[in-house]
Amino acid sequence: MENVFFTNPYLSDIKNRIDEALEELVLHKMAGNEAPTMSLVRDILLVGGKRFRPILALLAFDAAGGKDESIVMDLALASEIIHTATLIHDDVYDQSKTRRGMPTLHTSHGLSHAIIAGDYLFVIGFSLGGKYDNIVIEKMAKSAANLASGELLQFEHISNLSTTPENYYSIVDGKTAGVFASACSCAGIIAGANSDVIKSLENFGIELGRAFQLVDDLLDLTGDTSMGKPKGTDVHEGKMTLPLIHSLTILHGIEREQLADILNNFSDDRWQELTTLLVKSGSFEYVKQLIMNHIDRALNHLDLLPESNAKNLMKDIAIASQNRRL
Amino acid sequence: MENVFFTNPYLSDIKNRIDEALEELVLHKMAGNEAPTMSLVRDILLVGGKRFRPILALLAFDAAGGKDESIVMDLALASEIIHTATLIHDDVYDQSKTRRGMPTLHTSHGLSHAIIAGDYLFVIGFSLGGKYDNIVIEKMAKSAANLASGELLQFEHISNLSTTPENYYSIVDGKTAGVFASACSCAGIIAGANSDVIKSLENFGIELGRAFQLVDDLLDLTGDTSMGKPKGTDVHEGKMTLPLIHSLTILHGIEREQLADILNNFSDDRWQELTTLLVKSGSFEYVKQLIMNHIDRALNHLDLLPESNAKNLMKDIAIASQNRRL
Repeated sequence: MENVFFTNPYLSDIKNRIDEALEELVLHKMAGNEAPTMSLVRDILLVGGKRFRPILALLAFDAAGGKDESIVMDLALASEIIHTATLIHDDVYDQSKTRRGMPTLHTSHGLSHAIIAGDYLFVIGFSLGGKYDNIVIEKMAKSAANLASGELLQFEHISNLSTTPENYYSIVDGKTAGVFASACSCAGIIAGANSDVIKSLENFGIELGRAFQLVDDLLDLTGDTSMGKPKGTDVHEGKMTLPLIHSLTILHGIEREQLADILNNFSDDRWQELTTLLVKSGSFEYVKQLIMNHIDRALNHLDLLPESNAKNLMKDIAIASQNRRL
Repeated sequence: MENVFFTNPYLSDIKNRIDEALEELVLHKMAGNEAPTMSLVRDILLVGGKRFRPILALLAFDAAGGKDESIVMDLALASEIIHTATLIHDDVYDQSKTRRGMPTLHTSHGLSHAIIAGDYLFVIGFSLGGKYDNIVIEKMAKSAANLASGELLQFEHISNLSTTPENYYSIVDGKTAGVFASACSCAGIIAGANSDVIKSLENFGIELGRAFQLVDDLLDLTGDTSMGKPKGTDVHEGKMTLPLIHSLTILHGIEREQLADILNNFSDDRWQELTTLLVKSGSFEYVKQLIMNHIDRALNHLDLLPESNAKNLMKDIAIASQNRRL
């Protein structure tokens, strides 16, 4: 994924425009009476971040026939800022120590400041949406509310070995896919697209978001320190990712018991044991196949849109997402 | 204050209409896919709460010439819901055990659920504002951002005996007065009032909010268990309230040193000592005088508005606020 952004000049241009708009917003706030609060979140906003959601918003706007990018930029920034707000709050209750290579806010500034900083970013994010029609604000709010639901559902299923694929997809659709979908569909609405195009963009976002989360699940198990989080974070936290759910379904008898024991009493010296079982149940291959299915569906949803450079870039991103390393 | 609501039939009618609208919103969410998240915050939303902010919003709308109350109700609910969101998050980092006679959310459901619950209420609050013009959303966002600034500033001044009255008012204007002001002025905008009326409503809210906070400061020192928080919470937390700031300014020599020692090493057996010094420096009387000044100014700001039942009720609330017990 990162490769696509760096090597594709159109995508890196888009990312640069987003970074510039974000810097401008930060500078504007730093010049006013919100400076002390903004200085708390400035670094986490400006340093790092793939800008995945805002890039999708700008591309979807363009692909839906939107002309003046400046009218969709606030939506794009809102998607990134609300995402950052949830990261700050997630890090608090997940007790994460680092994020994007920096100490997390609660580690450097304490619990109170991290909670207030996240709240402040929610406020900025929603105020950026204020210029759009109510339907856009409602969609943004719905996806943010579903994000909260998804997080609560994920907690309910922590270390629950009976978690079903349906539970899993409810969590993912709330936490990841719904946000991608609303970024894309809101951009379509702002572009003035017809309802079929808006629906296609929404479905593209959902399928891409699901693929994106499944890739995350795999990376957690196969490991890639360049992702910024240590291998096995999900397993240590008892998060029931789809490879684990699949393996628990496929395995029987003593192997199922062994897997349950690994998940219930996980430690880093059990990686080999876990990997062997996941290979045996074909869970890596199964999830890779699902990722390809979601990407195929995402691409199909773009068929309805007229040919354009932006549409091709959305395809490139979808195809690249299955091989992303970070 | 509570007395006014219970004995004045107009005010209790308004409060009932707000409670009904809030119940309807909660029921609506409970019937959809946000039910698990809403069930987490239902009790704290519906049980207790003076509904001070939404009552002011409805009265200001009426006093500004607004006719159809239903168009301002979402603003009123948003002010209460965003207020509740901040209470939930405040309770987390203040480590408060009870709120409105119930266990705080983080006590009953844990840190993660309390953070997510507050985030969810921010989302609902801002989505309710989505139907209004951008200027209303911007004012709501600005007051919410200032609330975050006020909280951060308050942390900076914890146990800081050099805190000035100016620092104090910056904190209060962010945390309390600004929110009252935006509820009143946004209601005026929605009522279609002219800019002078809107400004008067805003100033009324600021002055009433300041009076409201100063009364809180006094109650913390004089104590009233019916407030729902134990006497001396502020002193124990090192919050620099105006009576303390005033006393530190007035006293000199050994008495100033004694007061500093009490504040730096406070325990409940030093109440008598603290009270004696506050009486000696005239700080209770000083703050009572300031409260009356703010209320007078609040009343003066209403002069510009035409006579109406709503305007008289706003006056009643302002006058009653100096004697409120909870």
